[in-house]
Amino acid sequence: MAAFQIQQHVRFQHCDPAAMVFYPRYFEMINLTVEEWFRTGLDWGFQQMHEIDDRGIPTARISVDFSAPSRLGDVLDWSLAVARIGTSSLDVEIVASCGGELRLTCRSTLVQFVKSSGRPVAWSAQIKSRMQAFKEVTAAESG
Amino acid sequence: MAAFQIQQHVRFQHCDPAAMVFYPRYFEMINLTVEEWFRTGLDWGFQQMHEIDDRGIPTARISVDFSAPSRLGDVLDWSLAVARIGTSSLDVEIVASCGGELRLTCRSTLVQFVKSSGRPVAWSAQIKSRMQAFKEVTAAESG
Amino acid sequence: MAAFQIQQHVRFQHCDPAAMVFYPRYFEMINLTVEEWFRTGLDWGFQQMHEIDDRGIPTARISVDFSAPSRLGDVLDWSLAVARIGTSSLDVEIVASCGGELRLTCRSTLVQFVKSSGRPVAWSAQIKSRMQAFKEVTAAESG
Amino acid sequence: MAAFQIQQHVRFQHCDPAAMVFYPRYFEMINLTVEEWFRTGLDWGFQQMHEIDDRGIPTARISVDFSAPSRLGDVLDWSLAVARIGTSSLDVEIVASCGGELRLTCRSTLVQFVKSSGRPVAWSAQIKSRMQAFKEVTAAESG
Repeated sequence: MAAFQIQQHVRFQHCDPAAMVFYPRYFEMINLTVEEWFRTGLDWGFQQMHEIDDRGIPTARISVDFSAPSRLGDVLDWSLAVARIGTSSLDVEIVASCGGELRLTCRSTLVQFVKSSGRPVAWSAQIKSRMQAFKEVTAAESG
Repeated sequence: MAAFQIQQHVRFQHCDPAAMVFYPRYFEMINLTVEEWFRTGLDWGFQQMHEIDDRGIPTARISVDFSAPSRLGDVLDWSLAVARIGTSSLDVEIVASCGGELRLTCRSTLVQFVKSSGRPVAWSAQIKSRMQAFKEVTAAESG
Repeated sequence: MAAFQIQQHVRFQHCDPAAMVFYPRYFEMINLTVEEWFRTGLDWGFQQMHEIDDRGIPTARISVDFSAPSRLGDVLDWSLAVARIGTSSLDVEIVASCGGELRLTCRSTLVQFVKSSGRPVAWSAQIKSRMQAFKEVTAAESG
Repeated sequence: MAAFQIQQHVRFQHCDPAAMVFYPRYFEMINLTVEEWFRTGLDWGFQQMHEIDDRGIPTARISVDFSAPSRLGDVLDWSLAVARIGTSSLDVEIVASCGGELRLTCRSTLVQFVKSSGRPVAWSAQIKSRMQAFKEVTAAESG
């Protein structure tokens, strides 16, 4: 019901010669938002996922709209909400803003794979249930 | 009429713990494809653009479909074609494949800005004309 | 007298196909340690430094000894101590460990420059005084 | 006898808000120089090394002196020479220049490991012999 929240500072390493975030670095921040959500929101850290459970969650599709540039020193507020839970896939919506100003909106589709076989695999009931807690409630669903 | 072509090797620096390209690194490759196209295809290098001409071409929107993973040692064939030339914007389609296997399809919208003012600015006639040479010819247009 | 302390998680983005930190990513972490020290330890953030005060602190020399690999999920304890304060230069010693196990030792020399002129410039008395608080006390000096 | 040579362009992705190479990116270039040397100079590519031969060559120690900044658009000439061949270790000297102007000098020690066991392992006679061809001839040795 509530989106996952995380803050990330715009560091020197993120910025291009215009002192704005170089957009490939935004994807590192997007990935870190997902990584932190799995670790603290779903209680399934990437180390456990990748190295013990033989799972990975590659991105199948991602699209980003950039609304305004971010600059060195900005502190970005990231939020992640679940848009759709599929059998082995997941759609998330990620938004970054700074001081209330929208910076980007991202929609991403992840798919869970078994690393050793390279095949997609269904989410466990437990993970699905935890994901549900971050699902956006639309007017239709809540009404 | 002909797409811009460039090869990029999948390097150690691009790969994640699954020995596949970590997707934020793909955006570095996408950016490099655009950068090389401007430099050699449009004869307008980023150093000239950013440091002498006071221009930048930030990305306003980007979406990528990932078809198959790329692995350490793969040599990717990148191609870039112009989809739409706007007044100050540009849509490009970028495709990466390896040995004929599709890896990703990207659609990106760039906007030309004056760096010092932060305002969008129209493409020059010369640049537009050069861009035209990389425009895809659709059935309707060619027919 | 006390070293500056900061924790950094080993994220997916830092790791190579061996699931260990790819060493160029350590230099991003080293830079972030310096950046955070300037911001919170010396109260002189990079945004203020670079964009308002027209200063930069490029690295003139750096050497790192890697003692043991770091892996996905590790939480690294970083510490930074001042080794030598020169007129316009600074030597710092940076150490990273995990659960008490040493991972790397770094010695780096920074030089303060005026960005617009490209010339080195002396540290202000105020910054020198703040740096002094992070200086290691050797036996000779304390004795 | 002859050093390994490779050119690398300074790309947008390498540059910081001062439009100079951000030094962690130099380490990506250094790594790429080593990677290309292994692939084309020693005929032992990283994909073969890491994924088939179960070997890795982590860096045990690295030091870099930065002589002059590199800027967007610079084409850097990299050279790598072997300084010392140990049982399982290797010292290389890497130099980058641009138009004859020295930019950096790097000394790096690599160690060959078996990936699955995490133990150092001796270079094969064949690899040692190939490395020998890139060894610098000092006055004493040649005299």
